Amino acid sequence: MQKLKHVEEQRGAGRAQILETIRKAGNIARIDIAKETLVSPATVTAITSELMDAGLIEEITPEGPRQKAKRGRPRVALKIRGDAYPVAGIKVARESVSVLIVDFEGNELVAWDSDLKDPMMSPDVLAQEIYEAVKGACDAIDMHPSELSAVGVGLAGLIDAPRSFVHWSPSLNSRNVDIGAAFSQKFECPVLVENDANLVAKAEQLFGLGRNVSNFVVITIEHGVGMGIVIDDKIYRGSRGCGAEFGHAKVQLEGALCQCGQRGCLEAYIGDYALLREANAVNIGHPIADLPSLWELAQTGNPPAQSIFDRAGRMFAMGLANVVNIFDPEVIILAGHRAAFDHLNLVGIMEELKGHVVKVDAPLTEIKAHQWGDKMWAKGAAAYALDGFSALKIREMSISAA
Amino acid sequence: MQKLKHVEEQRGAGRAQILETIRKAGNIARIDIAKETLVSPATVTAITSELMDAGLIEEITPEGPRQKAKRGRPRVALKIRGDAYPVAGIKVARESVSVLIVDFEGNELVAWDSDLKDPMMSPDVLAQEIYEAVKGACDAIDMHPSELSAVGVGLAGLIDAPRSFVHWSPSLNSRNVDIGAAFSQKFECPVLVENDANLVAKAEQLFGLGRNVSNFVVITIEHGVGMGIVIDDKIYRGSRGCGAEFGHAKVQLEGALCQCGQRGCLEAYIGDYALLREANAVNIGHPIADLPSLWELAQTGNPPAQSIFDRAGRMFAMGLANVVNIFDPEVIILAGHRAAFDHLNLVGIMEELKGHVVKVDAPLTEIKAHQWGDKMWAKGAAAYALDGFSALKIREMSISAA
Repeated sequence: MQKLKHVEEQRGAGRAQILETIRKAGNIARIDIAKETLVSPATVTAITSELMDAGLIEEITPEGPRQKAKRGRPRVALKIRGDAYPVAGIKVARESVSVLIVDFEGNELVAWDSDLKDPMMSPDVLAQEIYEAVKGACDAIDMHPSELSAVGVGLAGLIDAPRSFVHWSPSLNSRNVDIGAAFSQKFECPVLVENDANLVAKAEQLFGLGRNVSNFVVITIEHGVGMGIVIDDKIYRGSRGCGAEFGHAKVQLEGALCQCGQRGCLEAYIGDYALLREANAVNIGHPIADLPSLWELAQTGNPPAQSIFDRAGRMFAMGLANVVNIFDPEVIILAGHRAAFDHLNLVGIMEELKGHVVKVDAPLTEIKAHQWGDKMWAKGAAAYALDGFSALKIREMSISAA
Repeated sequence: MQKLKHVEEQRGAGRAQILETIRKAGNIARIDIAKETLVSPATVTAITSELMDAGLIEEITPEGPRQKAKRGRPRVALKIRGDAYPVAGIKVARESVSVLIVDFEGNELVAWDSDLKDPMMSPDVLAQEIYEAVKGACDAIDMHPSELSAVGVGLAGLIDAPRSFVHWSPSLNSRNVDIGAAFSQKFECPVLVENDANLVAKAEQLFGLGRNVSNFVVITIEHGVGMGIVIDDKIYRGSRGCGAEFGHAKVQLEGALCQCGQRGCLEAYIGDYALLREANAVNIGHPIADLPSLWELAQTGNPPAQSIFDRAGRMFAMGLANVVNIFDPEVIILAGHRAAFDHLNLVGIMEELKGHVVKVDAPLTEIKAHQWGDKMWAKGAAAYALDGFSALKIREMSISAA
């Protein structure tokens, strides 16, 4: 039995590898799959037949003029079966839920946004809000949510993705939530949850500045500070789903008090609330309600306002330098949907960074800002749902074979 | 040609995979290799035949009584050819060079230490010192250095291992050294150089506390502070060989001056020199020459001495917490050959750490101290040489086939 299980695991890995090869290639002949993967032609034939039976892939006969002119049997290629399994990607932000529904090839079917009543809620209310947003998106294309094959959800916070477990999220009013259970009350299909910054990393890898980069780091600034790490082309999650906590890396022993209750976190020096706290603790001229007002004040030359942004920028540079000192990634992508990095003074940060990064006579890690809309987060979530659904389907095939 | 090159790359990857499978298994039949790797039996037969021709593996007929009693053809297995290619592993410390010569199966043939005249030298002198130490080890077993197939060298500093290039090392009196060129003046075989903390990580993975752990971090404290990172069972080097610079991660903006010339590095708070600098800047009773004297003074209850160790321990805890916040590894191994961690008060550090690590209701990353001798460093270097030599040999086979 042990032996059989091992063989089935290998078979599952082979199915995943071949499906990924087809997805990457767009379309590809069986013999080329065998060459790409080193899997024997006989096994490729067997596995691709299983994948076809499962409806994941289909045969096509490329119809180019060159092919037509050739004699003999037409060359048959395999591709992902686009209309097979539609999935939805979701990004939960403070004020809204963004939904993107794509077909199994990743083509967009519909994008949809809906407002959130409250930024923080119970797991059941969150599941309901997401369900309603998905319903809205489905209605727009005459589809029913029950037709979805999988849903990928990006949440801020500490997420143990393989267990669909939320250690903590700013969107939830309780800790240690089995969010999978809450979702399964609303959705018939599997719902895969993941840290939202990891989904941005996934989107950057597939569609953005992370294409063809094996090792990179994404930093997101919204209300909090997020981080996604890609190592050897894979999202790095840490052993408990608690890695990549850039915002809560400590930049000063016994430093400023953070929202999380600890002292000296980077977020307590660069988050919106940290800057407003400083501004409102001194007589800066008038009460400051939001970051744009404080930024405007700094632009007019107000010294305390300038000092606040100056320190925030220097602390941010020190945090980035530590990412370079530890990871030495090829690129750090600062990803955000607002002018989130303007006030952090990127030019100054690059100069500051040089004083903190271990000195070598080699070009410094590139730091690139990438501004995008909320759709990009949802796009990452949809790609995650496609991956997750394929993995589930392949596991299902293995179980039925065993 | 492009196509041919691609196929040869795949073939090389197949050879490496099969060699690794054999090394891990100890001995294994061809059919089991095919099952393990999903490579077709025909390709396994072809590749293992190439590996035998190259002298990397050999056939054995297991001679257990059960086999003998069976009828028919005896089952033939493959194993690494032990006496094929001896290699040497070297660790360069401040005062000595340690050498370990092993056979191609990794069995120790001889261990040897020799003193260094000077901790810092020119590349040519370093190559000469290493050559003499290797010669000493070889003499002890009636071997000549020219019989070695590869040498692995562990150096402190910033090493771009794939290029055999040293950005900076405390053992060298110049920066930006093509150390490969210096070594090739002395040795006939390939010399592979690597950051020494990465070799400790390799040794922990093969022989120590990192066995069966996919994601772990090793921290070494000698004169400086080193770090090795293992992610998904592989050493993570960073894009320029400048990752894992734990000692130069910044723990305070505009903080204490470090040996490296920057301010606020962790090393500037926990390195020997940092503690002695503090001790000798105040009237602590009498001049302090070394760390053991300062530690003894603290043990007698001297408040400034206690305060110095207290802050060092807290800064170290904050640095470790940031490793947990960013990597969330399963284990952090504190590896050293002296009582290097005694004065950093591990019990206190674990308590302190809890206040800096993002709070979840899940067990904290384990932190384990592992004391070992210099032989362990050299053992890591030897394992690195075995890997490196196998890779070179396989590349050679691909070039001759192309």
